[in-house]
Amino acid sequence: MNQRLGKHSIRLTEPVAILASASVVGKKEGEGPLGLLFDVVGSDDLFGCDTWEAAESDLQRRAVQVTLDKAAVRTEEVSYIFAGDLLGQSIASSFGIAGFDIPLLGVYGACSTCGEALTLGAMSVAGGFAEKVICVTSSHFASAEKEFRFPLGYGNQRPLSATWTVTGSGAFLLGKEAENVRAVIRGMTIGKIVDFGLKDSMNMGACMAPAAVSTLVQHFNDWNSQPEDYDKIITGDLGKVGQKVLFDLLQEKGYDIAERYMDCGLEIYDSKTQDTHSGGSGCGCSAVTLSAYILKQLEEKNWRRVLFVPTGALLSKTSFNEGQSVPGIAHAVVLESVDLH
Amino acid sequence: MNQRLGKHSIRLTEPVAILASASVVGKKEGEGPLGLLFDVVGSDDLFGCDTWEAAESDLQRRAVQVTLDKAAVRTEEVSYIFAGDLLGQSIASSFGIAGFDIPLLGVYGACSTCGEALTLGAMSVAGGFAEKVICVTSSHFASAEKEFRFPLGYGNQRPLSATWTVTGSGAFLLGKEAENVRAVIRGMTIGKIVDFGLKDSMNMGACMAPAAVSTLVQHFNDWNSQPEDYDKIITGDLGKVGQKVLFDLLQEKGYDIAERYMDCGLEIYDSKTQDTHSGGSGCGCSAVTLSAYILKQLEEKNWRRVLFVPTGALLSKTSFNEGQSVPGIAHAVVLESVDLH
Repeated sequence: MNQRLGKHSIRLTEPVAILASASVVGKKEGEGPLGLLFDVVGSDDLFGCDTWEAAESDLQRRAVQVTLDKAAVRTEEVSYIFAGDLLGQSIASSFGIAGFDIPLLGVYGACSTCGEALTLGAMSVAGGFAEKVICVTSSHFASAEKEFRFPLGYGNQRPLSATWTVTGSGAFLLGKEAENVRAVIRGMTIGKIVDFGLKDSMNMGACMAPAAVSTLVQHFNDWNSQPEDYDKIITGDLGKVGQKVLFDLLQEKGYDIAERYMDCGLEIYDSKTQDTHSGGSGCGCSAVTLSAYILKQLEEKNWRRVLFVPTGALLSKTSFNEGQSVPGIAHAVVLESVDLH
Repeated sequence: MNQRLGKHSIRLTEPVAILASASVVGKKEGEGPLGLLFDVVGSDDLFGCDTWEAAESDLQRRAVQVTLDKAAVRTEEVSYIFAGDLLGQSIASSFGIAGFDIPLLGVYGACSTCGEALTLGAMSVAGGFAEKVICVTSSHFASAEKEFRFPLGYGNQRPLSATWTVTGSGAFLLGKEAENVRAVIRGMTIGKIVDFGLKDSMNMGACMAPAAVSTLVQHFNDWNSQPEDYDKIITGDLGKVGQKVLFDLLQEKGYDIAERYMDCGLEIYDSKTQDTHSGGSGCGCSAVTLSAYILKQLEEKNWRRVLFVPTGALLSKTSFNEGQSVPGIAHAVVLESVDLH
């Protein structure tokens, strides 16, 4: 029924609909170029909580609630929730969504998690295992700095190659096609771990770019498609440094995507005025950009077909301290406007 | 096509086959009651590596390799790998399986991860998204103590309610039915987060038992089944303390499962001689017991239908230190011997 393409891709015979979505972000994200598009902008990154971790959980809770409210769907109508974040043991997710009483399938793919959640969510609907599911991911600048580098109170310095973890959560309600649909998921290409041996956790764009290249090339092969088949090809959070590596490596493979390329990490902040160095990153970065900006373009038919490729760096503080490299992973999701098929 | 049952269960019209599996364990597990059944027993829990984390990655690598070897399947034939472990950012998995060059879908459900991986793996095959997939999970006593409590070198004391994290990894190759099949997956019930507000990370059995009860009751309702329909009902790692809580809570709901009950954590060690307190635990506990012991019973037709319910405690060192409770989760998988259908 569902068409498998090539080695690692799926083309859904019946596309899965994104019925509703929501984005909840912090103050800095609200002041950025996409600020006016987000559903909720916090006035304080603690969101009324006592800890950064609890604040991140609150982001997820709000994103899911706003999504359900927009669609006028009750929690009982949702079969499962695919949730993930960057924190150890995914605590932002588990404490964030516990109250909804919806069965949980926890996912982890670092900053590519939004792509993984959408992939598995779409599979569960298209395979007949669920009527409606929610996919939600989050990140928080302060909880991520504490998890991967140092608590903010230490005041550590950041090199220009470092990215700024987005404080935000994006949630998506997937289901069968209906009247009001933001866009549809037409298929996906599932990524492999790619490790070029880079070890710099302050330059994750360069660590993730080879994984994005691997997934993009696999996608074009499997789908027998070309960059020109997409109005936009959008990575998650490669940032300025990663973008250059991506273009160079793709050029070697014979692909030029520059004119239709976009990176969520480069859209979400104004690098000139917001001091975010290489760009935004995190599980929340691609999720809130997808919800607030990309789906809006598809809804308004400014774009008809988009290749959305969240990118992740598979490191932990422990693996970094033990001298391990920083492998990358990227999953590609084909999004189409509703009038395309 | 695939029959959804009740609110949170799936009954697969065409069951998914467990084509092969493998278990790789540490020295202590090899000396336990199931010792002779495991495929590989390490003589040293470092498995030739420099760090506990790298050793855990090696467990996963070996478990996957032995599984592929047993089935005479090449990595190119495997569509995706569903992998997870207990470490922050799932580094045991990402560094363990990177070399296989198989697309990765990372999963996290604490010690319930084996149930989640099998659930999603079975969905991907039954939904027509994959021909063959691998599901693998692991845990390691020393890396887990460091991750959740203290490094072993600190020599901290453990209360009798504490469980002993199993050093081991279990891998499973799922696919369509074939000639040589260990057992089949007939369906699953996906669990919710259940939080009774307990805060003792040294008594995780009690924290997880309410989640096991929730999933079991949901399962019996959704499937319109009774405990008597199963030869065994097997939880992951509730241990001695959790077992008592489980029986008590189920009794209140009108279910008595005592005579057909088994807990992987209680099978894997001899609590009288191995000083493991409440029993074994960890992502590897239920996985290696399933591969080495449970599937063997199904293969030999000693059991025909089993309800396999890995249980997880959704805490992290950070959530524990910040005074959060320890919520639980459990996923149920219905396993049948090949002659049953």
